Amino acid sequence: MDFVKKHIVEPGTTVRLKKIATEPDGPFDDKQDAYDFTADTIAKMRDLQYRLYVEGKQSLLIVLQAPDAAGKDGVIRKVFGHLNAQGVRTFPFKVPTEIERSHDFLWRIHQCTPAAGQVSIFNRSHYEDVLVVRVEDLVPKRVWSKRYEMINQFELLLAENGTRIVKFYLHISPAEQLERFKERLDRPEKHWKLNLGDYDARQQWDAYREAYETAFEKCSTKAAPWFVIPADKKWYRNAAVSAIVCQTLEEMDPQFPEVDVDLDQVRKRYEDALAQLDDDA
Amino acid sequence: MDFVKKHIVEPGTTVRLKKIATEPDGPFDDKQDAYDFTADTIAKMRDLQYRLYVEGKQSLLIVLQAPDAAGKDGVIRKVFGHLNAQGVRTFPFKVPTEIERSHDFLWRIHQCTPAAGQVSIFNRSHYEDVLVVRVEDLVPKRVWSKRYEMINQFELLLAENGTRIVKFYLHISPAEQLERFKERLDRPEKHWKLNLGDYDARQQWDAYREAYETAFEKCSTKAAPWFVIPADKKWYRNAAVSAIVCQTLEEMDPQFPEVDVDLDQVRKRYEDALAQLDDDA
Repeated sequence: MDFVKKHIVEPGTTVRLKKIATEPDGPFDDKQDAYDFTADTIAKMRDLQYRLYVEGKQSLLIVLQAPDAAGKDGVIRKVFGHLNAQGVRTFPFKVPTEIERSHDFLWRIHQCTPAAGQVSIFNRSHYEDVLVVRVEDLVPKRVWSKRYEMINQFELLLAENGTRIVKFYLHISPAEQLERFKERLDRPEKHWKLNLGDYDARQQWDAYREAYETAFEKCSTKAAPWFVIPADKKWYRNAAVSAIVCQTLEEMDPQFPEVDVDLDQVRKRYEDALAQLDDDA
Repeated sequence: MDFVKKHIVEPGTTVRLKKIATEPDGPFDDKQDAYDFTADTIAKMRDLQYRLYVEGKQSLLIVLQAPDAAGKDGVIRKVFGHLNAQGVRTFPFKVPTEIERSHDFLWRIHQCTPAAGQVSIFNRSHYEDVLVVRVEDLVPKRVWSKRYEMINQFELLLAENGTRIVKFYLHISPAEQLERFKERLDRPEKHWKLNLGDYDARQQWDAYREAYETAFEKCSTKAAPWFVIPADKKWYRNAAVSAIVCQTLEEMDPQFPEVDVDLDQVRKRYEDALAQLDDDA
């Protein structure tokens, strides 16, 4: 199955999240089938990321956005946890600090974009500045409404410099979210995650949905597409995200660099060093 | 076995690398025994790092130094690759850039020290400024000779702020290094790693050994000890490094934070949300 085609928000189209299922509708026979697929895909992804790292020319930016408990941390652990740590960095964007607030909203983001050869993973992102900021009315509409085009130009800047961008929205239902909140209550080792604010955000579910829909419509571009991933089932979520990242890396087609040393010369140096070693012994 | 005790450079002692074996001398029955031990240790380390991340009070800095092909990349992949990516960052320190050279030698290092809850892994480090810089005579002795105490005070600054520091030297023999260079020659997919400079550095083996010995003697401190790890066998190297990091994390003893919300209140909010969900259905 072509997961990219299935879940991409085609640039220029409108999105109605209510009409997009949070439950998967294929293509796996069962959970185990999905696990096997994901393991294979992750192995491929790992190999491609290694090539990206060694090639040192292109880079990859992965943006994760989602309601609380939808699985951003889970995806980072279960999917991206398998990437080679030397080539990947994860950046959680939380409530801006005083210094961050004293700059424009893209300032702190720009510092975390991936260098050539690298992968950056954003756990939340600059999109919060048209999501929570819009829903909670943290700045006036005349301020946040200008940000969509600023974001598009910023992402184009990165893309033109060799960065591929994929943006994931983990789409869960209010019922599944509540189920996961219950798990946090039921399991004492998860109590540290409890937060009354989680329930406040649920009250704003519709407002967030609308804010997300606007972001997808205005900011799903050819250079930086959005993907809406059915996320009520973790096994499907992980399969789809890994498949899309893998396909993206395949398209980037990173190559080991040409060998720019003279192999005969290296062989000669090796033989000399070996002879030296025997002399010393 | 107490790997910390076995491999630590006791502060204030002198080190003669030639007298320290590069081959392991225990405690494993065979390779498989070491693999099993390492897998168990990594699982413990992973759990402890998760607590460190959630606790958000202390941090860990791991420094890796070694001759070429001694296994810095291998340790990062095989041992630290299992840490949760959200709590760990790897920093390769290469030849300083123009901007970096226009600052003091600790400037670029300081930007990469771990925040509370985080682990930083340095692939090479500020020690290059008393190693390659000394051996290759890149600055005069009066400059580099002052750096040991600067490094000690810098590391103390970090330690006093809640950062544990462990520094590993991966100790391989010239013969084993040459063996690994041969592998790069024999396997075309490793040709991109070939570098004539590797053979030049071998000519300076003794000078590097002396520079390392000085660094260990002057900069193995209580706050930031050096460990010399026999690294001719990858299975022993990985076992020892994971055991020492695991033991360090155990000593740090990170704790899940106290739950500071009223559980009854959360339960009430959950019940309300559930009732609301049923109403909507």
